[in-house]
Amino acid sequence: MKLNILGCYSATPRTFTNPTSQVLEINNHLFLIDCGEGTQVQLRKNKIKFSRIKHIFISHLHGDHYFGLVGLISTFRLLTREVDLHIYGPKGLKEVITLQMKLSDSWTNYQLIFHELTSKDSELIFEDDKVEVYTIPLQHRVYTNGFLFKEKEGERKLDMNAVRNEDINQAYYRKLKQGFDVENNKGKLVKNDAVTLPPPKPKSYAFCSDTAYDEAKIPLIKGVDVLYHESTFLEKNANLCEKTKHSSAIQAATIAKKANAGKLILGHYSTRYDDISLFKTEAETVFSHVELADDGKIFEF
Amino acid sequence: MKLNILGCYSATPRTFTNPTSQVLEINNHLFLIDCGEGTQVQLRKNKIKFSRIKHIFISHLHGDHYFGLVGLISTFRLLTREVDLHIYGPKGLKEVITLQMKLSDSWTNYQLIFHELTSKDSELIFEDDKVEVYTIPLQHRVYTNGFLFKEKEGERKLDMNAVRNEDINQAYYRKLKQGFDVENNKGKLVKNDAVTLPPPKPKSYAFCSDTAYDEAKIPLIKGVDVLYHESTFLEKNANLCEKTKHSSAIQAATIAKKANAGKLILGHYSTRYDDISLFKTEAETVFSHVELADDGKIFEF
Repeated sequence: MKLNILGCYSATPRTFTNPTSQVLEINNHLFLIDCGEGTQVQLRKNKIKFSRIKHIFISHLHGDHYFGLVGLISTFRLLTREVDLHIYGPKGLKEVITLQMKLSDSWTNYQLIFHELTSKDSELIFEDDKVEVYTIPLQHRVYTNGFLFKEKEGERKLDMNAVRNEDINQAYYRKLKQGFDVENNKGKLVKNDAVTLPPPKPKSYAFCSDTAYDEAKIPLIKGVDVLYHESTFLEKNANLCEKTKHSSAIQAATIAKKANAGKLILGHYSTRYDDISLFKTEAETVFSHVELADDGKIFEF
Repeated sequence: MKLNILGCYSATPRTFTNPTSQVLEINNHLFLIDCGEGTQVQLRKNKIKFSRIKHIFISHLHGDHYFGLVGLISTFRLLTREVDLHIYGPKGLKEVITLQMKLSDSWTNYQLIFHELTSKDSELIFEDDKVEVYTIPLQHRVYTNGFLFKEKEGERKLDMNAVRNEDINQAYYRKLKQGFDVENNKGKLVKNDAVTLPPPKPKSYAFCSDTAYDEAKIPLIKGVDVLYHESTFLEKNANLCEKTKHSSAIQAATIAKKANAGKLILGHYSTRYDDISLFKTEAETVFSHVELADDGKIFEF
């Protein structure tokens, strides 16, 4: 998995900082998560191929998370895109996008498929043979979902030395990978685990922004490899968290710790702070594996 | 008058080029004309004080002319603006902006006053004691207006030597500036033009984008000091003008010549061209006073 941060600052686009948007590369998918104003320029700067984006996930309808979406849709049209585009986001998103297409008399020549979300419970919203995406209901001022991206358990790997020693016909390799015991060329039943190795542990990534401190999501993200959790405020402004339904660095770290996450990435910093390193310092008082998101930064895991 | 080009390229925002937006400073007003995606960042880069913008003019509802508006309105709110904001643009603009405010539950704490335009004839849409703004109906794929900004005729200037020679009481200076004849201290009627000078010639600026070649607007912009006219295409692609309802550099220059404009500024270049200097070269075959807009460029006149 590879996570490319396009923007990770809160509230408004500024000269050197961008509102929320990120691209998760997982099993050949490029999932775009949130799409603040300027995302299409950030995609260009980060050399991400527009045509590879087929699924866009929007957490909520505050502008810093979606004002760049209509422009991106429009640019896809101008680039004569033909591939379907799936958009997952709160109810209302379809209305606002289609209204703007109607007013400009600019309909897409590709299929635009909206998956509008309304449930307050976690839902499976995307699935193929290798990946699943679930919503993570979050607590914010408006209806908001985080997203959990999970690889499915892969196939077992062949231990080629053992396979050859056991003299197993190549026709059975597929069954071995799927976990079955097979007969070898001498008619002997070979136990699967004698000639295969377990598949790599499936990886998972949880995006949680924007949200107040809320332990209700912990069961959903338990044991996640990487957790991106918003941390809008430092401790000195932690009093603003409750009113604005945002989190502090320490609150994000507390969720990471309680969820037993492998790693915590912080982001959605208030632009009032000049030095984001303090977010890491504060979070590390609670949880050790903390990284700071920043615009243009790439995480591979 | 001072014109600050924030963006002057067509279609989509790119790494180094911005869609249409410009700020006209005229008699202490800062008028924002069009507001493509990224305009608020361009305003910051060009060090334009957000609070001085009180009137925004939107030519039409293609995204490259207004997708940055909702974000700018939202940023004004976050900056705790209190001053009214007037927005002039095609019918539909109010609906799309208010829908997005409703969905984000983020209403402005300042007054947002929409002046929706529907007329196909030129209208006076703004007026104070020094400036008038008229629409210029344009021919494009959707309902579009250009805008004509005109200084009103100012007051006459006192010729102080003549005034003192004629021994005119200071109480009459106001009347003199307004063009009246007055009595001097000896009871003699002094003709106004004997002691005053004509006011400076009022200046005017016409913004015409996007538009096909259309001579119907010439009477409206006759004698304008500065004409900004879109020139999306060079001659080699002039065949695209009719279909897309855009203009070539030569067509823009032809309008400037027929309108007897003082100066022509070209812009709205298609991003297919690497070298915009060719727009000037081609336009100059028809009209001599041609300038090229470019992002960040300032024209004073």
